[in-house]
Amino acid sequence: MNVVALSGGVGGARLVEGLCRALDGKLTVIVNTGDDCRHWGLAICPDLDTVMYTLAGVGDAARGWGLRGDTFTAHEAMRAFGEPAWFSLGDRDLATHLTRTAALARGEPLDAVTARLSAALGVTARVLPMSNEPAPTLVDTTEHGLLPFQEWLVLRRAPEVRGVVLPSGVAALPAARQAIDAADLVVIGPSNPYVSIEPILALPGVRDALSRRPVVAVSPIVGGAAVKGPLAEMIPRLSGVAPSAQAILDRYDGLVSAFVVERGDEIRGVPSLATDAVMRAPEDRLRLAREVLDLGARVRR
Amino acid sequence: MNVVALSGGVGGARLVEGLCRALDGKLTVIVNTGDDCRHWGLAICPDLDTVMYTLAGVGDAARGWGLRGDTFTAHEAMRAFGEPAWFSLGDRDLATHLTRTAALARGEPLDAVTARLSAALGVTARVLPMSNEPAPTLVDTTEHGLLPFQEWLVLRRAPEVRGVVLPSGVAALPAARQAIDAADLVVIGPSNPYVSIEPILALPGVRDALSRRPVVAVSPIVGGAAVKGPLAEMIPRLSGVAPSAQAILDRYDGLVSAFVVERGDEIRGVPSLATDAVMRAPEDRLRLAREVLDLGARVRR
Repeated sequence: MNVVALSGGVGGARLVEGLCRALDGKLTVIVNTGDDCRHWGLAICPDLDTVMYTLAGVGDAARGWGLRGDTFTAHEAMRAFGEPAWFSLGDRDLATHLTRTAALARGEPLDAVTARLSAALGVTARVLPMSNEPAPTLVDTTEHGLLPFQEWLVLRRAPEVRGVVLPSGVAALPAARQAIDAADLVVIGPSNPYVSIEPILALPGVRDALSRRPVVAVSPIVGGAAVKGPLAEMIPRLSGVAPSAQAILDRYDGLVSAFVVERGDEIRGVPSLATDAVMRAPEDRLRLAREVLDLGARVRR
Repeated sequence: MNVVALSGGVGGARLVEGLCRALDGKLTVIVNTGDDCRHWGLAICPDLDTVMYTLAGVGDAARGWGLRGDTFTAHEAMRAFGEPAWFSLGDRDLATHLTRTAALARGEPLDAVTARLSAALGVTARVLPMSNEPAPTLVDTTEHGLLPFQEWLVLRRAPEVRGVVLPSGVAALPAARQAIDAADLVVIGPSNPYVSIEPILALPGVRDALSRRPVVAVSPIVGGAAVKGPLAEMIPRLSGVAPSAQAILDRYDGLVSAFVVERGDEIRGVPSLATDAVMRAPEDRLRLAREVLDLGARVRR
């Protein structure tokens, strides 16, 4: 079974890791790059890194970013030099950004350097950036106007949103388009639809390609609350409804064939599975991944 | 007394540190940037860093480069990613290169970012790069032809030299020229003349400006051997004579007013001081600096 997953950061990465184990590494992951940024002159791809690190088993699960046990010697020295220190980069993590930045500077495409980094980390799944071109997501805030994504999320700690601005005319990675076309099942992880999944869906041709495949999504909203991040506050602002699994499904607007939700969060409109949808321990990831694949196999028939 | 020192890396930096203490911080240092390089996409200025770190008391004196007690987490991760690992950059040291690289990329001149880094490190002397423009020294080798300086010295471990190629038409830093013109005494540290001092002398106007000032040099050759590095092997190849303090003085060709040598290395042609010219302990730096300044005061009369 050819499975393609769409992922943002932490929640999506955890499900992807479970899917990778359930499928013995035979998985393609298309990762949001809308929250990529430059920091200290380095090319940072937070969601790609979280997916790679989580798949490699080296990510810091508690923190949700960076590498487990990393040190911050360079970071503290940067702070002493008066450089911006609001975005934390560990010493070992720096090697990823340095390698990527140097590769991009000499013309290597993002997917190629991502493949090299993934292979060096021992990742067996195929990790693809959604595009080789920059596709920065801007967040329109009530207080500060338009902000680059990381400035919104990390520097300003997710102030009130009144819109999300996605770039137009950015080409999807051809290999990502082809992977979707060849997929027996597409899984949308429990990521933030507005800023993690819609940047992928907004790339020309992607939504159309997905509409021809069975798509199983996992709700990032559990009991009216977000598992992580500012999603619950964004739903009323951006969709005009209270936060709920149903609001997520409605946001995907006909694209989803079946939906996995927390028990008690049953929804209407598509086949669904109500289960324990929060991945706390590593074994939750594999269990949830298998439930997602089973549901996918049912909707394919 | 306005004192200007010309310096390469380790030996020059040690004397500069002694001079800085002897002069209560009232010292301008003009530093060779001919061995600057790009590594992992970062702008590295080895001699500037050695001078700054030595003046700040944070350099690794035993190794001669980098910061004392630094860690190499990023370096080992770069090696694991298959990136070149022949040039070692510590984690804390990386902050210097990241800050400089980002500054240069946004158009800040090298002297400005050097001043910022120096101030943050607590350096009281004025540390100037010899130029704000790239001025790469190339080493012409018997075996490999022309090599960028660090590839010659570090990657290939200083193979046999048949020439040194300095760029032409690179402007000296105006502040460096002005400092020389205002100097009561110029000190040339015990650095390699061919690859550390001559890149400074080769900048248009510098040799001429120096010829109008009293110049005291310290021999980097002691008893026919180099205190550090490949200098002793270079003298026969590039000057056609055996390595000696006299060979260094002759190389400076009339520019030096007085010369400080090791006892037993007495030279002819200019006033000289024979002393313990090797700076092993920190107190040697201050003692030698005072001897240099005393000799300088005598040649000024």
